[in-house]
Amino acid sequence: MSIEQRLAELGITLPEPAAPVAAYVPAVEANGLLHISGQISFAEDGSLIKGRLGENMDLEAGQAAARRCGIMLVAQMKAALGSLDRVERVVKLGVFVNSHGDFTDQPKVANGASELMQDVFGEIGRHARSAVGVPVLPLGVAVEVDAIVQVKA
Amino acid sequence: MSIEQRLAELGITLPEPAAPVAAYVPAVEANGLLHISGQISFAEDGSLIKGRLGENMDLEAGQAAARRCGIMLVAQMKAALGSLDRVERVVKLGVFVNSHGDFTDQPKVANGASELMQDVFGEIGRHARSAVGVPVLPLGVAVEVDAIVQVKA
Amino acid sequence: MSIEQRLAELGITLPEPAAPVAAYVPAVEANGLLHISGQISFAEDGSLIKGRLGENMDLEAGQAAARRCGIMLVAQMKAALGSLDRVERVVKLGVFVNSHGDFTDQPKVANGASELMQDVFGEIGRHARSAVGVPVLPLGVAVEVDAIVQVKA
Repeated sequence: MSIEQRLAELGITLPEPAAPVAAYVPAVEANGLLHISGQISFAEDGSLIKGRLGENMDLEAGQAAARRCGIMLVAQMKAALGSLDRVERVVKLGVFVNSHGDFTDQPKVANGASELMQDVFGEIGRHARSAVGVPVLPLGVAVEVDAIVQVKA
Repeated sequence: MSIEQRLAELGITLPEPAAPVAAYVPAVEANGLLHISGQISFAEDGSLIKGRLGENMDLEAGQAAARRCGIMLVAQMKAALGSLDRVERVVKLGVFVNSHGDFTDQPKVANGASELMQDVFGEIGRHARSAVGVPVLPLGVAVEVDAIVQVKA
Repeated sequence: MSIEQRLAELGITLPEPAAPVAAYVPAVEANGLLHISGQISFAEDGSLIKGRLGENMDLEAGQAAARRCGIMLVAQMKAALGSLDRVERVVKLGVFVNSHGDFTDQPKVANGASELMQDVFGEIGRHARSAVGVPVLPLGVAVEVDAIVQVKA
């Protein structure tokens, strides 16, 4: 089963990948590794998912925001590689969670993105990860996730 | 002298590496680079080292927490590679320090992890690094460190 | 035109690259990728550019600080590679912006570093990027930027 078929099974429609802004690009492939820019949380309708965990957003909403970042990362992989079947392995996710100083469940929030990768890619979607709290993110979004992906030779 | 012998000389006992949690894994090797997940600060007795620098933890305690993250990274290298003698070079550490807004000695805290790498690996333990403050970390720990390691072919 | 000639055209004089501090080094090359340590914002006169966006530093000053981090990254590339003409591609910038919790223009600040890379390297300076807010940075600086660069074989 191709990754596209798995996406269809999961009922996931890939969004239009965010266009390059200013002097940076969504993804760069170098020596077999694709580095993907930090993707901020957008809802399916294209609006920003804003909020701060532990202040005005609950865990479930944070996980949903992280999952949306994951879906946008997949959209960027497809745009960069042509086909998702060129993904050899999801290597690393860097997860930044907009957090009040008392909120310490960043790993549970990050699972929203990590489980999405496993749902979509199966075994090759299992990745290394860091998850940290930050006091604020671009445009006030709840979650930002960047990624490193190994590409088939 | 093997790295294991150097660990023994230093009196360092590697902890049981943290088991995979949810849909991510401790480390992924791709194209000769091992990306290791962010390791949070655990004490030798397995309890979490919690705290915020500049608020309720002093510099020395922060350095000790960073050193423990470094030891856990070494434990993850061994688990992933089988033998620590397969480490060609420690390439990069990413150090996140749970910090009050007035605390600006993140580099000194991070040295706890950096010096551990040099103690254990010698010249090949000298790495690039970033060190930043964050307002909060998973489970309230003081320090989180992730790593990239070059693996012998 | 060589990169050095482009620097001259842009009127950019590379600073003395910051010397290794403690047990880490400015940059490590592994498998064709150069990982450069986080560079903090220094002014041309060698003094630190300190400040927190949204609190005591405006956007323009933040962009200038990010640009200075970019220039220091170029200085580190030259020190590590001997010649800037060995740069194959700027792959990724990680931008950390010292931010008040209400400041959400991290991408605009980060453009200071991103545009510098494009000015200096042209097409091969276009990179992937993440930009996040942090509550504090080493020594109180406004911006820290690390980088991954692909090196010519």
